[in-house]
Order: sequence, then structure tokens, then C-alpha cells
Amino acid sequence: MKARVTIMLKDGVLDPQGEAIRHALGGLGFQGVDAVRQGKVIELDLASSDAASARDEVARMCEGLLANTVIEKYSVEIL
Amino acid sequence: MKARVTIMLKDGVLDPQGEAIRHALGGLGFQGVDAVRQGKVIELDLASSDAASARDEVARMCEGLLANTVIEKYSVEIL
Repeated sequence: MKARVTIMLKDGVLDPQGEAIRHALGGLGFQGVDAVRQGKVIELDLASSDAASARDEVARMCEGLLANTVIEKYSVEIL
Repeated sequence: MKARVTIMLKDGVLDPQGEAIRHALGGLGFQGVDAVRQGKVIELDLASSDAASARDEVARMCEGLLANTVIEKYSVEIL
């Protein structure tokens, strides 16, 4: 079973990497880009075949290792 | 209009960051994680209100700046 975790900085947390991308896009002539946020995506191949327990386990992985929940939010999709 | 770009290493390209995550998860007691791939997600706020032209423009941004298409693949979602 595959799971995809998307980790973004929480709203209100400054995202200098996103800001750098926005600035670079402007420099390349792309107009009309109002804001950019960058995050991480992590795809996991899990041995588990039960979607509900896989989702719980991936959420525990996020809390314990993958995300810094002080400044980041995460979402889990089971594919 | 919002767009989300997901950028992953192409299949077959070594992903040491993903491998490090897999190893760390094993060390924390998470069994049954067969493979991990890490990528980037970039959320863009666009001034454009036409979905088709926004998708084209974001694809051009990916080709020109956001993705290294030699080793990375990208997908564009209009939200």
C-alpha cells in the first residue's frame, strides 16, 4: 500500500524558500504569481494492507519524525 | 487561482534522502516500510483565472526553473 505525506509550513510561518522561488519566477518573466509556498512530499511503500491502520501509522510517523508540528502541518493520503 | 506542483525524482534515480528517512523510521520501531521517496511540493497563488492557461504557465515554470527535468518528474494540479 502506498501513502503520500504532504508537509507544508503552517500559515503565518515565514517561508523564505517560497519567497525566493516567487522572486526568481518574476525575474524569468512570469508575471501574476502572488505567493509561493514550498513544502515536502514523502511517498511511502507500506507492507500493511489495511488503509485505516496504515493511515494511523503514517500519522504517528509524521508526529514522531517526518514533520516538525510546531511550525509544519501535514496531510496523509492513502493511494 | 491556486496551483500545486509536485516534483519527485524519476524512478531509478537514487534518493538518499528517502533512504535516510526509511532508515530512521526503522530505528524508531516502524516496521513494514519498504521504500521511501522524498520530493518537493510548491503551491502557487496565480492571478490568472483561466485554468487551462494557468496549467500551461505552471508547466513552463517547471521546465524553466522549478524542476530539473533530467532527473526529476513533475505534476501540476490546478486547485
